Amino acid sequence: MPIKIDHHIQTLPATIPFVAPERTERETGKHFLARLGANENNLGCSPNAIDAMARIASQTVGQYADPENYSLRAALCQHLGIEMNNVVIGSGIDGLLGLIVRIFSSQRDIILTSAGAYPTFNYHVAAYDRTLKTVPYRDDHEDLGALAEAAQKLRPSIVYVSNPDNPMGTWWPAKDIEAFIDQVPEDTLIILDEAYGETAPEGTLPALDCSRPNLLRLRTFSKAYGIAGLRCGYAIGHSELISPFDKIRNHFGINAMAQAASEAALKDQEWLAQTVATNAAARDELSAIALKNGLTPIKSATNFVTIDCGQDGAFAMQVLNGLMERRIFVRKPMAPGLDRCIRVSTGKSDEIEQLSAVLPAVLESLK
Amino acid sequence: MPIKIDHHIQTLPATIPFVAPERTERETGKHFLARLGANENNLGCSPNAIDAMARIASQTVGQYADPENYSLRAALCQHLGIEMNNVVIGSGIDGLLGLIVRIFSSQRDIILTSAGAYPTFNYHVAAYDRTLKTVPYRDDHEDLGALAEAAQKLRPSIVYVSNPDNPMGTWWPAKDIEAFIDQVPEDTLIILDEAYGETAPEGTLPALDCSRPNLLRLRTFSKAYGIAGLRCGYAIGHSELISPFDKIRNHFGINAMAQAASEAALKDQEWLAQTVATNAAARDELSAIALKNGLTPIKSATNFVTIDCGQDGAFAMQVLNGLMERRIFVRKPMAPGLDRCIRVSTGKSDEIEQLSAVLPAVLESLK
Repeated sequence: MPIKIDHHIQTLPATIPFVAPERTERETGKHFLARLGANENNLGCSPNAIDAMARIASQTVGQYADPENYSLRAALCQHLGIEMNNVVIGSGIDGLLGLIVRIFSSQRDIILTSAGAYPTFNYHVAAYDRTLKTVPYRDDHEDLGALAEAAQKLRPSIVYVSNPDNPMGTWWPAKDIEAFIDQVPEDTLIILDEAYGETAPEGTLPALDCSRPNLLRLRTFSKAYGIAGLRCGYAIGHSELISPFDKIRNHFGINAMAQAASEAALKDQEWLAQTVATNAAARDELSAIALKNGLTPIKSATNFVTIDCGQDGAFAMQVLNGLMERRIFVRKPMAPGLDRCIRVSTGKSDEIEQLSAVLPAVLESLK
Repeated sequence: MPIKIDHHIQTLPATIPFVAPERTERETGKHFLARLGANENNLGCSPNAIDAMARIASQTVGQYADPENYSLRAALCQHLGIEMNNVVIGSGIDGLLGLIVRIFSSQRDIILTSAGAYPTFNYHVAAYDRTLKTVPYRDDHEDLGALAEAAQKLRPSIVYVSNPDNPMGTWWPAKDIEAFIDQVPEDTLIILDEAYGETAPEGTLPALDCSRPNLLRLRTFSKAYGIAGLRCGYAIGHSELISPFDKIRNHFGINAMAQAASEAALKDQEWLAQTVATNAAARDELSAIALKNGLTPIKSATNFVTIDCGQDGAFAMQVLNGLMERRIFVRKPMAPGLDRCIRVSTGKSDEIEQLSAVLPAVLESLK
């Protein structure tokens, strides 16, 4: 090809952070009976959000949506007690992670995360030609002490932490996160990914404090709020961390459905409370199924349960493959130490029943 | 702030390619009576697309959408007679333009466009620290000869051309575009933006030829198809130009509504033919209103009519301000030579009537 491709991009592999269940369905020609791999809310979303979508569809879908995302941001500010210049909307946390790497680091800068943490963050780090450094998990938790120590030693531009954590589902109480934040050098930007914040026990999320000059907190409408298909997340932080987004973001990029449905979903906290309760019950069911089958569920603050299969990574992969072959979509952690587990999202009752029905046969076949 | 911001991004102004009508409405406290500034299809979209949106809203909005956009791409391939590896979906043409600049050029590379052409392209060029060079319009058309000559002389990484053109609404027949493509050096990527292709006269769009190694053609569901609020555009080209997108794009970034509604809209060509006819009639009405008021409409192949106000840029700005004060949202070209014009989108009948009703008073007030 005569056409020049940016040298760094040329060297990147053609990759995707996750293989989609739709791809597996196309390849096998079979639909999954249970979709329990992507940490989605299979119970859907608030009826108010559905109404908001219907209104957009029939009335204003032909119009570009407000590039300032004003109405949604105002609703978030009221809900969270922050100011308009402390929040920016993105195309899900995924979109925000790309912007954050681009803004708050430069080529070949060091960026720190946990080995086995969110792959899409690592994908953006690689795509922007930054240097990823990792710290291992410890006892299935992100190791806050080791991360802080590595941050002091490596002086990364950015350190990424999620709480609650994905893919293990574990969490730290707010006071431990606050202590971690205090230990990170003040010229390192902390990304605190709270995608699963709504399903965590009280006392998990530190109080919002937008005066902190090196902290961005990420939240989403894709998990508990149940509108992953629309792509809507937000970052909260100091106004001087928020304002640079406006210099490079795709201003008209947040679709009208995402803006309207997210606002409606946010305003229906009663629905959220119900779905959080349903989710907790589903976690208990998944844990019980694991125990009944001789596997060990890891205590979770999220909308999934990570299950220790009790042997090595190869065995857990066989369990996963057995479930996938029986049309149960699940995923698994891949990092050494974590890879002995599979990860199962809370789904609808019938999906959990499907899992319950086939898991014994899968395990039996591996004996 | 102790936090490092990428040096180039630090130097960028906080900017936005367009001020949204919602912002003006918030600032004035008044809603526009007619929304004729953003080249939207105010008639909405195919009822099949509305049904698709309702289906997503009530059934699968909690699920992440297919990151491969398979179903929509397959529909596009069938409609256009191209292969799956010749098309990539983006968050509108805006999103694709950002990716294209990032992939097909490097820091400080020269990128060529027409002075006064699409500002969002220039926004991405600046944000990625490339060097923008421009060629003036000629007789209200993008000057293909001068662009080809400049491309030969400057050897830019990318040259951007739109056909039909925005903001003037003019166009070149396919054979002139084909001759231009032949004259551009083969190591310069040509972006041919055909956002307004559906409303152009037959013979405007060159036949699709994905063997061309330096041509990407951009199209969208935001204009004639009437779903701007969902953000869905696509790029067509040689497979070796399409494959690099997968190395850096936000794979899960195309929302479920955009994918499903675009596919449904594409499959309703009858609706498209109707809206294209309605749009042509509205162009005629806008032209007649201009003429009746002593102004000169420029012949348009798009969903807007650019109107020569007959004096200088300052006068045209006064006409625009007069309309905006009377709650008619319009925009105008700003580049020297083009700035004597205002740009009015085809809207609903009542919106065109509003314009017709207030334009005489606006012009009278400027005498």
